[in-house]
Amino acid sequence: MAAKALHSMIRVFDLDKSMDFYRDAFGLVLVERFDFDDFTLAYLRNDQSDFELELTWNHDQTEPYDHGSGYGHLAVAVDDLGAEYARFEALGLAPRDLVEMQHAGEPLARIFFVADPDGYQIEVIESAGRFH
Amino acid sequence: MAAKALHSMIRVFDLDKSMDFYRDAFGLVLVERFDFDDFTLAYLRNDQSDFELELTWNHDQTEPYDHGSGYGHLAVAVDDLGAEYARFEALGLAPRDLVEMQHAGEPLARIFFVADPDGYQIEVIESAGRFH
Repeated sequence: MAAKALHSMIRVFDLDKSMDFYRDAFGLVLVERFDFDDFTLAYLRNDQSDFELELTWNHDQTEPYDHGSGYGHLAVAVDDLGAEYARFEALGLAPRDLVEMQHAGEPLARIFFVADPDGYQIEVIESAGRFH
Repeated sequence: MAAKALHSMIRVFDLDKSMDFYRDAFGLVLVERFDFDDFTLAYLRNDQSDFELELTWNHDQTEPYDHGSGYGHLAVAVDDLGAEYARFEALGLAPRDLVEMQHAGEPLARIFFVADPDGYQIEVIESAGRFH
């Protein structure tokens, strides 16, 4: 019953565009790619974790995916949130507002959200407290 | 630019039911819970990884979430896929067929999918090769 979290899979419309985004934004690079007749699987990771992001590219997809109301986001931690925010802005990645979340009157986390090319949300959290 | 993958967030309709499922299926247990006025955040993990599953329970949610077409699944690795499959069946978790995926004529992974109480898909992979 020991289940180890391996990866999260999202379907992407333009694989190259998505790989560029995840590399530029989070240093996640392609570590393995499997091309099938109808689809391609791309596994991205960086040296911070062995948890991977799996991108599925369905070759015949003709319209953008829709996101429904259920799935939320992938979260990542960074050391210097302000510096990353400035870097994201400089890269034209359009991060949303940097905010401090509180719980019961105490600081919980400093965060901002950014959307990937398909509109998936990523929560960027300053490495501190329980988020590291 | 060192971004560490921390968690994946999904919205769930019935928090207790979801926590029971993730505990029974994958040994993921509650490590922290934050109750806010309108919502609750619950962080689940096990001893296999520090990657967490974040469950968001919106207290006033009146209907099930819909899943769209974009988000795929969370994947986990287990040592003995057949044993887990039998255990899932015994628990009434209704795993889908156990299949062997191939790539270019070579075995790639032995897997099955199971759905959580909200219908999120989880891919259970036998720990082998690149999936471990």
